[in-house]
Amino acid sequence: MDINGTHYRTIWLEDDGWSIGIIDQILLPHEFSTARLTSLEETCVAIETMQVRGAPLIGVTAAYGLALALRSDPSDSSMHHAIQRLTATRPTAVNLQWALERVRNAVENLVGSDRISAAYARASGLADEDVSACARIGRHGAELIYEVAAGKRDQPVQILTHCNAGWLATVDWGTALAPVYRAHDAGIPLHVWVDETRPRNQGAALTMWELMAHGVPCTLVPDNAGGHMMQRGMVDLCLVGTDRTTRRGDVANKIGTYLKALAARDNGVPFYVAAPASSIDWTLDDGMTGIEIEQRPSSEVTQVIGRANGEVQTVEIAPPGAKAANFAFDVTPARLVTALVTDRGVCPASREGLVSLFPARTS
Amino acid sequence: MDINGTHYRTIWLEDDGWSIGIIDQILLPHEFSTARLTSLEETCVAIETMQVRGAPLIGVTAAYGLALALRSDPSDSSMHHAIQRLTATRPTAVNLQWALERVRNAVENLVGSDRISAAYARASGLADEDVSACARIGRHGAELIYEVAAGKRDQPVQILTHCNAGWLATVDWGTALAPVYRAHDAGIPLHVWVDETRPRNQGAALTMWELMAHGVPCTLVPDNAGGHMMQRGMVDLCLVGTDRTTRRGDVANKIGTYLKALAARDNGVPFYVAAPASSIDWTLDDGMTGIEIEQRPSSEVTQVIGRANGEVQTVEIAPPGAKAANFAFDVTPARLVTALVTDRGVCPASREGLVSLFPARTS
Repeated sequence: MDINGTHYRTIWLEDDGWSIGIIDQILLPHEFSTARLTSLEETCVAIETMQVRGAPLIGVTAAYGLALALRSDPSDSSMHHAIQRLTATRPTAVNLQWALERVRNAVENLVGSDRISAAYARASGLADEDVSACARIGRHGAELIYEVAAGKRDQPVQILTHCNAGWLATVDWGTALAPVYRAHDAGIPLHVWVDETRPRNQGAALTMWELMAHGVPCTLVPDNAGGHMMQRGMVDLCLVGTDRTTRRGDVANKIGTYLKALAARDNGVPFYVAAPASSIDWTLDDGMTGIEIEQRPSSEVTQVIGRANGEVQTVEIAPPGAKAANFAFDVTPARLVTALVTDRGVCPASREGLVSLFPARTS
Repeated sequence: MDINGTHYRTIWLEDDGWSIGIIDQILLPHEFSTARLTSLEETCVAIETMQVRGAPLIGVTAAYGLALALRSDPSDSSMHHAIQRLTATRPTAVNLQWALERVRNAVENLVGSDRISAAYARASGLADEDVSACARIGRHGAELIYEVAAGKRDQPVQILTHCNAGWLATVDWGTALAPVYRAHDAGIPLHVWVDETRPRNQGAALTMWELMAHGVPCTLVPDNAGGHMMQRGMVDLCLVGTDRTTRRGDVANKIGTYLKALAARDNGVPFYVAAPASSIDWTLDDGMTGIEIEQRPSSEVTQVIGRANGEVQTVEIAPPGAKAANFAFDVTPARLVTALVTDRGVCPASREGLVSLFPARTS
């Protein structure tokens, strides 16, 4: 999407033909800057420190990371080490393993420089596939917004989202926000309530930033507010992303998603989850028992990063010595999900629903 | 309760016999300081800026504010102006109106200096009544903790709380935390999960501070985490406060309380609300339609106050120009409340339940 009139993707091959450019998302929304990745280790650090984040973008970044590793050593042992190192960066994101598998399949029967060029080609292919998958999610999901808009007589459609499942979480378009951009660009009046999304504030920092940059009307709210707003009829639909979707439709997404799904059900508000095919883990049925929930550093809870006097600063919000726990994701059971919005269409959050769109997965 | 071994209340009559001392809660947990209120206006500002906060403490503070107003002008018009001004500071807190009513009843048939001394006496009486009511809530609520502890074989009872309904929200003991202090002091192993409570972070700043000061084991979590923790069996019971309780048991409490009540019901976790008699609004039945929800400044959402380099700083977390909404409370319907813990005992969150403890209210 555009930033001040210039089109960007979140990740790209630099003009040198081998190093990888990224939007460095750590300082957003306070500073916009890009970074250059030149090695496996830099790529792993970029994922771990969330210079890049969002399940689809993590997958593409890992694919390029494997290409960078093969460029410095195309041996089997180098490849296995790189896959192991990259897999360990974010254990919950299934896209990461999926993307690495794709690159491995493309290169494992090759040797030397053939392996390197094939890895780059596969990584770039994954990036392009992500863009086109997100664009399709946008088209399918926009239909759900059009339906609501038809009943609202020019009143804006009120959409609640959590975390950042926008184009900054993908290569372009986004997942949960792709339908929003599509409907907005089509002239549908809409407004997005943006959950702050503590502890890392991806909603306040990234979703607000990208929506404002694109001109989509939006308002920031604390994570605590969504239940109240749904009780009072201020939300027409919820639209969130997923880091991992089980074959029965359970979704692991940013911590707090489950609470919004409960409020949506209690108030008859549709709760949609934008799920690219790459997020679906066909090996898993029960998200509650099958998905490892990443725990992140407690400092993300006890500290907040913001802008003061023109500089980015970190402030402590808890008493010195306070203990904190930081569960990165929660699992929303399929029973609370009105529908999944995939790149192949909209389906019920159930095994039958998913198989209707992905018939090759019936086995 | 104690701060570094010294016993404090949150509000007191100064040694000069007329001005009012308070713990200035704005800079907690970064700085501990006290302040002195010498006029109606200073009292109103202290309530508005949340130097004092928490429904019971707001009530007692307002009572002293009325006494200060009468001290400078004991006329009827002064009294009516002061009541109007104080009532407007925090429209949702019913304790405030309740406390002002008590002082007015005590003084309206008096004149001159009799009116002043009667106002001070009534305000001090309200403070003492609050301490003893909170102590009774502690005794009744601790029984609920003892019941859980009996089934846990020395494993700590895991309690989730939201916002600050501790002694800093009252004159002493607290409401939701009174049972925690009581059970802890009785040697029951327990641990408190403390919701951060955005946007003002009263959990991170105040609840963590007062629990740590008293030596109660506690861990800070983002507001988003409670649903996940209840899904995983990490919470034995929820215990929160209420700013306003309707006669059928709906509770208006800090924004986000409703989300935790939904998660508690979905996972079979008891959800208890500590409700002092002063929080009960016997004129209201339906909390959804009857309670005005205060909206506070959007800057509380877009900014976070914390400690950096030894100083208290405010940082911006959203892009420049971001819009934000700040609903201070939400309403948890009685159907989600397992029981109310009042100073007269524990009862179902229903009209019948409340009337069983407050029989004079049957009419």
